[in-house]
Amino acid sequence: MNGAESLVKTMVDSGVEVCFANPGTSEMHFVAALDGAEGMRCVLCLFEGVAAAAADGYARMTGRPAATLLHLGPGLANAGANLHNAMRAGVPVLNVVGDHATDHRHLDAPLASDIEGLARTWSGWVRTSRTAASVAFDAAEAIDAARSGMISTLILPADTAWNAAIDSACARGPQAPVRPTEAQIAAVAEVLREGRPTVILLGNGALASRAAVEEADRIAQATGAVVLARNSAARMEAGAGQVPVEALPYPVDDAVARLSGTAHCILVGVEEPVAFFAYPDKPHRLLPDDALRHQLCAPGQDAAEALSRLGRAVGAHTLEPRREAPRAARPPEQGPLTPAGIGAALANRLPEGAIICDEALTSGGPIFEALAGAAPHSRLKLTGGAIGIGLPLSVGAAVACPERKVVVLQADGSGMYTLQALWTQAREGLDVVSVILSNRAYAILKGELRNVGVETPGEKAIGMMSLRDPDLDWCALANGMGVEAARAGTVAEFDALLARAMERRGPFLIEADLTCD
Amino acid sequence: MNGAESLVKTMVDSGVEVCFANPGTSEMHFVAALDGAEGMRCVLCLFEGVAAAAADGYARMTGRPAATLLHLGPGLANAGANLHNAMRAGVPVLNVVGDHATDHRHLDAPLASDIEGLARTWSGWVRTSRTAASVAFDAAEAIDAARSGMISTLILPADTAWNAAIDSACARGPQAPVRPTEAQIAAVAEVLREGRPTVILLGNGALASRAAVEEADRIAQATGAVVLARNSAARMEAGAGQVPVEALPYPVDDAVARLSGTAHCILVGVEEPVAFFAYPDKPHRLLPDDALRHQLCAPGQDAAEALSRLGRAVGAHTLEPRREAPRAARPPEQGPLTPAGIGAALANRLPEGAIICDEALTSGGPIFEALAGAAPHSRLKLTGGAIGIGLPLSVGAAVACPERKVVVLQADGSGMYTLQALWTQAREGLDVVSVILSNRAYAILKGELRNVGVETPGEKAIGMMSLRDPDLDWCALANGMGVEAARAGTVAEFDALLARAMERRGPFLIEADLTCD
Repeated sequence: MNGAESLVKTMVDSGVEVCFANPGTSEMHFVAALDGAEGMRCVLCLFEGVAAAAADGYARMTGRPAATLLHLGPGLANAGANLHNAMRAGVPVLNVVGDHATDHRHLDAPLASDIEGLARTWSGWVRTSRTAASVAFDAAEAIDAARSGMISTLILPADTAWNAAIDSACARGPQAPVRPTEAQIAAVAEVLREGRPTVILLGNGALASRAAVEEADRIAQATGAVVLARNSAARMEAGAGQVPVEALPYPVDDAVARLSGTAHCILVGVEEPVAFFAYPDKPHRLLPDDALRHQLCAPGQDAAEALSRLGRAVGAHTLEPRREAPRAARPPEQGPLTPAGIGAALANRLPEGAIICDEALTSGGPIFEALAGAAPHSRLKLTGGAIGIGLPLSVGAAVACPERKVVVLQADGSGMYTLQALWTQAREGLDVVSVILSNRAYAILKGELRNVGVETPGEKAIGMMSLRDPDLDWCALANGMGVEAARAGTVAEFDALLARAMERRGPFLIEADLTCD
Repeated sequence: MNGAESLVKTMVDSGVEVCFANPGTSEMHFVAALDGAEGMRCVLCLFEGVAAAAADGYARMTGRPAATLLHLGPGLANAGANLHNAMRAGVPVLNVVGDHATDHRHLDAPLASDIEGLARTWSGWVRTSRTAASVAFDAAEAIDAARSGMISTLILPADTAWNAAIDSACARGPQAPVRPTEAQIAAVAEVLREGRPTVILLGNGALASRAAVEEADRIAQATGAVVLARNSAARMEAGAGQVPVEALPYPVDDAVARLSGTAHCILVGVEEPVAFFAYPDKPHRLLPDDALRHQLCAPGQDAAEALSRLGRAVGAHTLEPRREAPRAARPPEQGPLTPAGIGAALANRLPEGAIICDEALTSGGPIFEALAGAAPHSRLKLTGGAIGIGLPLSVGAAVACPERKVVVLQADGSGMYTLQALWTQAREGLDVVSVILSNRAYAILKGELRNVGVETPGEKAIGMMSLRDPDLDWCALANGMGVEAARAGTVAEFDALLARAMERRGPFLIEADLTCD
């Protein structure tokens, strides 16, 4: 048994069963070890940014870490933007990064760089294995660290993969999270009983849990508090039968207006909300200065458990949560395709249990408004603002949940960052419908330019925000990677394509042309 | 004048005239400032890895820094792999990276990360501007630092762009490089006069200079020394009339054999050669242990000047350099397309002064053999081993030299990393012929797997190295980004397409199908 074999066995024995890989020379022993290992699915990605977001999507849907396999510093850098998003989602990810052999690194060969320093940008746990014999124990520790909701990066010099190892190891497994004390629960209950304007702000852990969201709604009913979702949630359950949670708006002015008058904010596994970007003369923090902040539980703690105890403390536990009513499916409106039209058609056709990967950005509002009463589904959002997450997130979600339909709502400019994900959709036969929201612009930047005071941008500025000249042909791009595709310019065309895409299994791409009206 | 305007004026006044940009919200003031600035060409790239390699290609052809415009930490990370290559090429690059406003960063908003730490992975110079008034001076210093052959990264918190600045500044301009002392020259001349087996190893600076290469050849003729080029040179001049320089082979065994028996190695602006990767039981250093190393000049020093003085010291300066003879253009052989067939056709059709961006990898050998006697041309290679450089390098080379034809020789697996470069080729109307060497595999890894002792890989390992299932359709991918394209499966088809591509101006892609024989 060599170090690479001990690593693969340790991963499988510790419950890491999927590896999103883009290997290179330094990872060849790992690749060779895969053939001898039962229970490890290896998914080839043609760019590391795809592998990182796929591991993120897998973790959001399973709660378990997948591995990425990356090639030295540049491979890790390529994964970096989507590792940033995974870091902000608070999900477990295990990066395995090859490096030069221990006795080769000091020679500063062309591919050498400071991998540990780079890894620390996104990782809560970083280690370079010293010997082949330590790889298994390092890997077990990395997996346990990841399970606490962080990115672990294990760097393997080539010799630690090829030298002899003694045995594999096994991670300890999930640990019971720290719980709030009775005094903490009582203090928050006391705040709620005051009856002053109170916001209960839910973080990633609470929003991913139906029980937590239901409990929060019961508490709101009992106390008059308002429940809000953090912006950019990693995962939310939505649709008919689910308890709807209003999200804090993204625009600073809207968010400040929504929180205006708040006397207390109860933070459920989330930090105090701040503006996504700063602007001249706009506030940085979104809560009123005199609002009091109360942390019910920290990120990574069990939000459902904490809310359940809080619910009992305020006598809310017997109430019935207010669930979204199913809305009669409206026939999609006719005319040129718009985000509202996409939303209407999708609300009509979405199968129960679908997973929506949301990088819709400026087109998202009207779509998600329409989806409120659709069949119950999960939503995965862009968590860290690093664009290019949607398409590869679908790879991980579909690998995690092969029995559920995955729908990607993908803005076109962002989609270009990691379009290589389409190839992996095709190779793995993943059941994903990718909807490209093709407005042929970095539309969000047009608004941002206005935000900084430029009302009429000049030719150069316009050129930096336009995706025209030439227009992207997403059907050709998809076909080029083996994914069937078609374009829709009207609601009727979109609805017909969507019907076809929902009936079949396997990847399909719809270019939703939003420039026809 | 705000900070962003003072930055743009400082860049233009300091000779930075091109910006390869992928802006976001935090860079909106910079984008707005472009409209008021004469003399700054802004080239939109749809992924930051394209911007970084474009700046590299521009610098290799002009010797001057271009700027990149990147969006916070994730944008910089996306640029990282090709910044690694630029770092290894020793070229000047100015990164301008937006960040959150100074008084917003401590709030750890979703897009926040340690940009300075990340930037140090590749940059010789890193600074975050403290105030709008200091932006111009920081930029001037960054440009001067870049000009010494490194990457400078200037991080601009949004408020330093929008607040009022006093004035612009101007970089000091290129400084005279440090020259070797007479004693250093005399010592190396003494070594050469010994007459023992001596290798003169040329680095990036020498190889890019016709004068330096000619001088090295004169010295070789006078002393019996052998001139070799470092592996992975940033730029070389080749073809008929040029002095050919044999490159040190990439495979460790071949390189060691080539250097076997060397008593002295004269390093001309390059470090001692080491193996690209380490392998069990293979050497790390390529020179014999008992060979003596002598540094004529350091990287960044003026190699042509040092070699010229050395040439006079050994009495070589009157000799005529041995130039490559033009070879009669052979009609391309018939039959299925092979790298040799591509080389023959290209040798025949290459116009004088063409620039070849070489990421041919495993297909490169026979192509470059055929190109030895072709019309004189420049070659830009993959310097740092971070794949995905070829297509975007062509963007920078074509922007730098609009009057020269650019040819990319691009391996298919690597090409997928930064295929977004094709769109910028189309938007800017760049005169680039992209030849995709489509062997539908990470072919280099097949050899590497053998190198680590695996003779018959299993199904999983094969799956990690195959780009089949589904096959990539590069013509569709190119068309999807507005680039005309066609496929060739025979030498005759390839030659006909190449003829057409050479006659026209503007981007064209040929998918060279190497799987037909």
